[in-house]
Amino acid sequence: MKNSFGNALTVTLFGESHGEAIGAVIDGLSPGIGICEDYINKMMDMRRPCGDISTPRKESDRVEIVSGIFNGYTTGTPVCILIKNENKKSSDYGESLDMPRPSHADYTARCKYHGYEDHRGGGHFSGRITAALVAAGAVVRYALENKGILIGTHISRLGGISDSSFSDYEEDIRHINSVLFPTLSEAAGEKMREKILEARESADSVGGILETAVVGMPAGVGEPWFDTVEGVLAHILYSVPAVKGVEFGLGFGFADRMGSEANDPFRMEGDRVVTSTNNNGGVNGGITNGMPLIFRCAIKPTPSIFREQDTVSLSGGCNATLKISGRHDPAIIHRARAVIDAVTAIALGDILTERFGTDYLGEGK
Amino acid sequence: MKNSFGNALTVTLFGESHGEAIGAVIDGLSPGIGICEDYINKMMDMRRPCGDISTPRKESDRVEIVSGIFNGYTTGTPVCILIKNENKKSSDYGESLDMPRPSHADYTARCKYHGYEDHRGGGHFSGRITAALVAAGAVVRYALENKGILIGTHISRLGGISDSSFSDYEEDIRHINSVLFPTLSEAAGEKMREKILEARESADSVGGILETAVVGMPAGVGEPWFDTVEGVLAHILYSVPAVKGVEFGLGFGFADRMGSEANDPFRMEGDRVVTSTNNNGGVNGGITNGMPLIFRCAIKPTPSIFREQDTVSLSGGCNATLKISGRHDPAIIHRARAVIDAVTAIALGDILTERFGTDYLGEGK
Amino acid sequence: MKNSFGNALTVTLFGESHGEAIGAVIDGLSPGIGICEDYINKMMDMRRPCGDISTPRKESDRVEIVSGIFNGYTTGTPVCILIKNENKKSSDYGESLDMPRPSHADYTARCKYHGYEDHRGGGHFSGRITAALVAAGAVVRYALENKGILIGTHISRLGGISDSSFSDYEEDIRHINSVLFPTLSEAAGEKMREKILEARESADSVGGILETAVVGMPAGVGEPWFDTVEGVLAHILYSVPAVKGVEFGLGFGFADRMGSEANDPFRMEGDRVVTSTNNNGGVNGGITNGMPLIFRCAIKPTPSIFREQDTVSLSGGCNATLKISGRHDPAIIHRARAVIDAVTAIALGDILTERFGTDYLGEGK
Amino acid sequence: MKNSFGNALTVTLFGESHGEAIGAVIDGLSPGIGICEDYINKMMDMRRPCGDISTPRKESDRVEIVSGIFNGYTTGTPVCILIKNENKKSSDYGESLDMPRPSHADYTARCKYHGYEDHRGGGHFSGRITAALVAAGAVVRYALENKGILIGTHISRLGGISDSSFSDYEEDIRHINSVLFPTLSEAAGEKMREKILEARESADSVGGILETAVVGMPAGVGEPWFDTVEGVLAHILYSVPAVKGVEFGLGFGFADRMGSEANDPFRMEGDRVVTSTNNNGGVNGGITNGMPLIFRCAIKPTPSIFREQDTVSLSGGCNATLKISGRHDPAIIHRARAVIDAVTAIALGDILTERFGTDYLGEGK
Repeated sequence: MKNSFGNALTVTLFGESHGEAIGAVIDGLSPGIGICEDYINKMMDMRRPCGDISTPRKESDRVEIVSGIFNGYTTGTPVCILIKNENKKSSDYGESLDMPRPSHADYTARCKYHGYEDHRGGGHFSGRITAALVAAGAVVRYALENKGILIGTHISRLGGISDSSFSDYEEDIRHINSVLFPTLSEAAGEKMREKILEARESADSVGGILETAVVGMPAGVGEPWFDTVEGVLAHILYSVPAVKGVEFGLGFGFADRMGSEANDPFRMEGDRVVTSTNNNGGVNGGITNGMPLIFRCAIKPTPSIFREQDTVSLSGGCNATLKISGRHDPAIIHRARAVIDAVTAIALGDILTERFGTDYLGEGK
Repeated sequence: MKNSFGNALTVTLFGESHGEAIGAVIDGLSPGIGICEDYINKMMDMRRPCGDISTPRKESDRVEIVSGIFNGYTTGTPVCILIKNENKKSSDYGESLDMPRPSHADYTARCKYHGYEDHRGGGHFSGRITAALVAAGAVVRYALENKGILIGTHISRLGGISDSSFSDYEEDIRHINSVLFPTLSEAAGEKMREKILEARESADSVGGILETAVVGMPAGVGEPWFDTVEGVLAHILYSVPAVKGVEFGLGFGFADRMGSEANDPFRMEGDRVVTSTNNNGGVNGGITNGMPLIFRCAIKPTPSIFREQDTVSLSGGCNATLKISGRHDPAIIHRARAVIDAVTAIALGDILTERFGTDYLGEGK
Repeated sequence: MKNSFGNALTVTLFGESHGEAIGAVIDGLSPGIGICEDYINKMMDMRRPCGDISTPRKESDRVEIVSGIFNGYTTGTPVCILIKNENKKSSDYGESLDMPRPSHADYTARCKYHGYEDHRGGGHFSGRITAALVAAGAVVRYALENKGILIGTHISRLGGISDSSFSDYEEDIRHINSVLFPTLSEAAGEKMREKILEARESADSVGGILETAVVGMPAGVGEPWFDTVEGVLAHILYSVPAVKGVEFGLGFGFADRMGSEANDPFRMEGDRVVTSTNNNGGVNGGITNGMPLIFRCAIKPTPSIFREQDTVSLSGGCNATLKISGRHDPAIIHRARAVIDAVTAIALGDILTERFGTDYLGEGK
Repeated sequence: MKNSFGNALTVTLFGESHGEAIGAVIDGLSPGIGICEDYINKMMDMRRPCGDISTPRKESDRVEIVSGIFNGYTTGTPVCILIKNENKKSSDYGESLDMPRPSHADYTARCKYHGYEDHRGGGHFSGRITAALVAAGAVVRYALENKGILIGTHISRLGGISDSSFSDYEEDIRHINSVLFPTLSEAAGEKMREKILEARESADSVGGILETAVVGMPAGVGEPWFDTVEGVLAHILYSVPAVKGVEFGLGFGFADRMGSEANDPFRMEGDRVVTSTNNNGGVNGGITNGMPLIFRCAIKPTPSIFREQDTVSLSGGCNATLKISGRHDPAIIHRARAVIDAVTAIALGDILTERFGTDYLGEGK
């Protein structure tokens, strides 16, 4: 039970919303992975609030890498990423939080940390921490791309509106990675944005579903028990704040299918074994089969809404009401996709490093 | 990436469908956990094929505990559980498997193990291995029950038919743990059984959804990042063969909700903080809030169907067709629930041992 | 804090001296490692009591591998090794142990397991458990030998008598692996045996030093911090009962040296970089340099002596005296070397699998 | 094989000698551990070069804690410690290191990192990194002291001179923690300092032995196999640069003892079970027995000496000679003790947190 993930490639997250800095340490990176600042910044941009559908708060999120790189490449020793917190206003906060916000982590943090938690702005639970996760993921993702492994996530559903499905994976991935509001259908994207604006107007928020595709994963990676590819990915995906469901391939759609409608028949494509359908989302028995990995994450609506809500006073031990103020997102789904991509890269980097050894992700020499 | 799970309480699975034995080692169990054979056997019965809706194959599945217990209690040292394989017919099988069965692990096993895999009856991927997992889970689950933590799983959906929802958790859990085909509504259960028989008649299989409730978990357990309660549970749940989706609370149902419809308001119940609704399934920010844990698993239809299917010949590198014979289940969902319960117990045992120390699950002295 | 060791290749030990069986599970073995029963039995023989210098108790120690092998090779899934306990006489033992034997684990087991421990014959602490460790080590060691990595251990000191030093590593390793009382000098070995017989006559026991050499390790393996080659080896070596000191290269001999006498100068040997001396025992900065690994373990005298000793009555809370009876070794050093070799193989197998990937130790296909 | 240590309480080290910063992340600290800056600075002072027996180089080593603390206490979330590198002169260094320094990690780093390593000033292998380790250890050590667990290390041998032995542990520990050159005998300390000055005059360096005592550890902590207290401590102690041997209690002194001279008899001291001698250094069967932990570390002479040494040119593939210039210590043993204390605190903090749960080290509330 730790704030780190991975066996061969490990990411440890640290920091609080209103502390000095947030950051991550990545241990187990191969030596010789190129560090591309533009790439990292592009990934950071994908997570940044955009326009009128996001919080007006602006963070510069300057990523500093203070260790583990030399002459533009990873050295093979731990990479520490730092993002300083600016404009934090710790004086605004009292000693402790008395009224926990519904569906936030205020109350569970109190139960776990006994009042020692840094409650300011959500502390260590704040979505702000994901900035460090995106930066760490970007380092790994860049190495994966050099190996031909591409990751992309679109909003497949929001407020009752569904996006198109993936058709040409590589092209679709490139497309959604080039836009800040990632949908495959422009029309669907337009309607979704409207839904978000409606939510904002009514002091409310919306949830949705993110769908991710990964192409280029070698077959034969994963374990039959416990460290299945699905299990390892789901484990880290549930760290993305607001994720409350993860499914692979048909996922919950399998529930109403017969075996004859669900199985993926094999066939040869040249000298490569492929499946005619990909209902299993690229994984059989916990191990990759060489087809694209496909999974979807349910994203709950942002719990910060500007309406009066029922809560309790922890000091008084009595019921109370609360109205949250401040700057918040009516939807975080378009920003969350950058985090989904990042943690996917981290998990796959870990799996591949373990499978093929500690030099695998580097460029060799 | 290993065949073991857990940090403080670790389970390692071993064995193949047609090898000498299958089994599990549980390390990290507190000293002083009572070992109740009747309880273990009852759990094993829940996983056993039942009547006409299951495979006609019968296994005695006698559980031997060869280490780690003394005078009826765990000693605190590793518990090794063995289940001998009987009636295995290894002579039926050739050197290697040429035609991988669609949606089974035959092909991915070949990619990973290069032909060294024991392919007989699915080898290490066989559902048979879950017998050891259920036995291991039973040891932990018994300790949890002594702490007031109860686990129960029902079939919430199968072949288009939905079961009732949980109403009184404790009573419902006791009910579903007392029957072999676990539904809350008897009528729904009857219809589901008919669906399974229909599938059998048409040489097909069915999938469904299992819903699990856990009551009695203390608040304040779990981690904000990576080792969230949801992530840890999902990780191990994906080891249950056929699970392709895991969701908590409303799960994918959050997608079409507004924040105002999704948040769980707090209120006092006596001197206890509770939530009026439980859309988050007992977890906020990765940490338990003291409400029941609620999650659902999507179960894909058994891939073994008795119809001709397209596949390839690995030796010939060409397309081929395959018709599976033998004894197989038209549905495994009612048996899978025993495995779901078992892995849930294992994951929670791990989380609690880590949180409260290595004596926590024992009876003390 | 677990009864398992290793990240990429993990060994979990289970069993008690007078339980049903002892054994080990090895997870993470590459597929395609040959399983040679003769080799395993030879390793088991090295650990077996020999002649008049050991306990008269005889165990057949038949090694059963119940999972993870197929057609004579590892499959890549967990290998479970079982050794049944024969002739155990559990009826001889009462409910609990009242007078802890000095320098045994009786008292510390009580403190840790609160009386639930299986105290019969030392339970999980018994030297008997090392039989399973030797069997597990043999599987890994065989794979290492196929990669050209050879391990050998001799008694470098016992009862004031010193053995010769390694001169030709490969030849010396082959020699000591062919004899049951491993010394490089036959004369020294003879004197040591006499010392052991003297100890037996005086109802006493002797300690000593074991020195191990490993040739064939590739350069560039290990980590600068925490998972240094020395640290990982020392970690597992301290599991060998009776080991109370571990040193590498000159070890404690460095204390009285100047830097100019201690440094190992580099030179070219053909196109290979070697060091003229090997004071550092093959490791610099925690990482192998390609020279032989050299380390020594201090072995304390067997605590089971047949003299009256002071102890306490745990039930009475008062001082007491104890005279141990039964069958015990006046020295275990010549048997312990088989365990040292085994754990060395396990640790190196882990390090190499992590470094070069999960197929590394197999024969490929 | 990672740059992190610990299961329940994990420390990850990062940074290079001439990079932006060095630091550590501590994950798993209990909430409610007081953070005392004076205490941390005192620990840092113990590691700092002192007077004429150390390098003239001065580092301010200002410790910044950028996460995981709030209102003067740990929050229970990861603590990131940063120490900026000042006065680094990276321009002095070329692209790569051609002539590896004997007994340094230059050559092994090349083998592992293929030339991507940051070789400037030893990079990630530099003794400078131990500043972060000492800071991290100080946080844990302060919590241990509040639990009554005291750690102290003295120079028991240097250049042929032996210090006195521990007599009154608590008093001796307080004494050596109050001086910068830690010996129990002032006279012995004076002679050792002279030896160091002699080494400096002759452009050489000296090694020695550090002896550590820990009082206050509860009995019943540790594991019988693999995660023995000795194994876990030795594992982390070997991370301290220059440590080449670790022994517990009599250690290598057991080699020439008979069992009757080596066993530690039990006796009652009031209602407490103690041993009359402590030859086993506080550990039996891998588990603490409540007596002081006693261990010694062999420290090799600093490899940086100012004499011409034989080496090779890696680019030329030929023999070469090298004379190191710069600022170096003729002995690091008195500074290394601060690192020994720090890693001891970290390992014990990990063991205790795992044993007694994640709240154990905090002050509660």
